[in-house]
Amino acid sequence: MKYYEDIEVGDTEEFGEYHVTKEEIIEFASQYDPQPFHTDEEAAKESAFGELVASGWHTAAICMRLLVDNMMDKRASMGARGVDELRWRQPVRPGDTIHLRTEVVDKRRSESDPGRGYVDNKMEGLNQDGEVVISWVGLGMVAVRDPESAE
Amino acid sequence: MKYYEDIEVGDTEEFGEYHVTKEEIIEFASQYDPQPFHTDEEAAKESAFGELVASGWHTAAICMRLLVDNMMDKRASMGARGVDELRWRQPVRPGDTIHLRTEVVDKRRSESDPGRGYVDNKMEGLNQDGEVVISWVGLGMVAVRDPESAE
Repeated sequence: MKYYEDIEVGDTEEFGEYHVTKEEIIEFASQYDPQPFHTDEEAAKESAFGELVASGWHTAAICMRLLVDNMMDKRASMGARGVDELRWRQPVRPGDTIHLRTEVVDKRRSESDPGRGYVDNKMEGLNQDGEVVISWVGLGMVAVRDPESAE
Repeated sequence: MKYYEDIEVGDTEEFGEYHVTKEEIIEFASQYDPQPFHTDEEAAKESAFGELVASGWHTAAICMRLLVDNMMDKRASMGARGVDELRWRQPVRPGDTIHLRTEVVDKRRSESDPGRGYVDNKMEGLNQDGEVVISWVGLGMVAVRDPESAE
């Protein structure tokens, strides 16, 4: 288990594999983002995308699953404060396989809670061709192993 | 249908009603965010939240549904560039009812495409007690009705 002290700015990881099916794209979007280019294969052909593509929020949720399965179980996570600079950079299509690349971009101790550290990670979701499909900066919190330490 | 010209900075809207059930919280999280405080009512009692709460990405997806049903069908939307400053501000619990408040915070014409306008919206999801549970700035694109106009 990695604590705040074990994490350094510049640390990178690359992991995971999530296969995206047409059925899942349609199911997610039917519930949460029912726009025709996410829910209707025929209508999507007439859209700006020219084919069925995943909801951007679906792509984010898929990356969250990759994080939970591959990274959060190895960190003394205290949850997330939020997300900055979320960008959808390429469409996700049926048959794509998504994996994640992460990089620690900032860390600092909480001023009010000595047991808490702030750790910010740049997250990139990539498809099977190595194209970045989504990116964001995740504002995370990680427990400090030794809260009485100076830094 | 509202085009770029019909939208002004400061325009606000408040709309929608999405009832969040325990079953839906568990179903979403089981697929995309399988942490015990999102998927297991008993385990959640032992967590920092003290009870079952929705995945933050689920809350975002619920707000997207409210947007699609209540706002995007009335705007000549050309899609989203991304999201800034996404923050989870209060937990969403089983039985909560979420609605949305939006405010136009910036608009400008594209420099490269005269038919395209950039419209940024502050989004806030609120619960039945009027507490903001999630907020972000959505970076949207809206079609210009008259691309030959000067502004």
